[in-house]
Amino acid sequence: MESNQENVEADIQAVKEANQRFYDAFGALDARLMEEAWEDSTEAMCVHPGWQPLVGSPLIQASWQGIFNNTTLMHFNLQYINVVVKSDCAWVTCVENITTVVDARASNFSALVTNIFVRESLGQVWKMIGHHASPNVG
Amino acid sequence: MESNQENVEADIQAVKEANQRFYDAFGALDARLMEEAWEDSTEAMCVHPGWQPLVGSPLIQASWQGIFNNTTLMHFNLQYINVVVKSDCAWVTCVENITTVVDARASNFSALVTNIFVRESLGQVWKMIGHHASPNVG
Repeated sequence: MESNQENVEADIQAVKEANQRFYDAFGALDARLMEEAWEDSTEAMCVHPGWQPLVGSPLIQASWQGIFNNTTLMHFNLQYINVVVKSDCAWVTCVENITTVVDARASNFSALVTNIFVRESLGQVWKMIGHHASPNVG
Repeated sequence: MESNQENVEADIQAVKEANQRFYDAFGALDARLMEEAWEDSTEAMCVHPGWQPLVGSPLIQASWQGIFNNTTLMHFNLQYINVVVKSDCAWVTCVENITTVVDARASNFSALVTNIFVRESLGQVWKMIGHHASPNVG
């Protein structure tokens, strides 16, 4: 457990940086960076908006590759709603405001997302282990 | 960290029981039981299907009271997709198949949900600290 407020703030900053690495990989349409942003785990879980849940790294990384193959532009504007760090686990809820070009058609949409991270035992590196995204109809 | 597989199984079982307590409270339309299922925290987060995120126990518990006030029947059939326990944090992804009567109209719908739990330091009691539900259109 954290001993003081300073450490909590540092942890929250590190988790936001891990969250940003995920969106940088997403925006770059880069499957290798996306794989690096995630924990390699049979317990990893991913819900793309409107999809059924995917469990385990192979299915999840294949899904990103498929999305990237069909997308020519993806730009994110993030709004943080809630960031929680508890020991070596953390989760972020945020609104993704997205401009995208899929199959040569441009569109804007918004998603509500909860991203879950674990801290790797060898350092201060946080990796995504859960991603639940849903259409933001509000 | 857990030292053996037996402890991991016991933790997963305890988390599923905490998850079930949430759905028992929901099905009973019981605001007191719902409050007991949740961690009392400024960091608690709740996304009802199609709603904007709510942060902090007062807003969240008020939302349940409002839902219960307008609902006369709520029956859940749960399908577990993924359960992860990491030290004193855990998360469950499941499909809620719901039969409900709201404002005197019966309907069936399905939601995809990620529920996040923390283990209270005084015992083996797990409490919900995050609930992200989205319409399951698959």
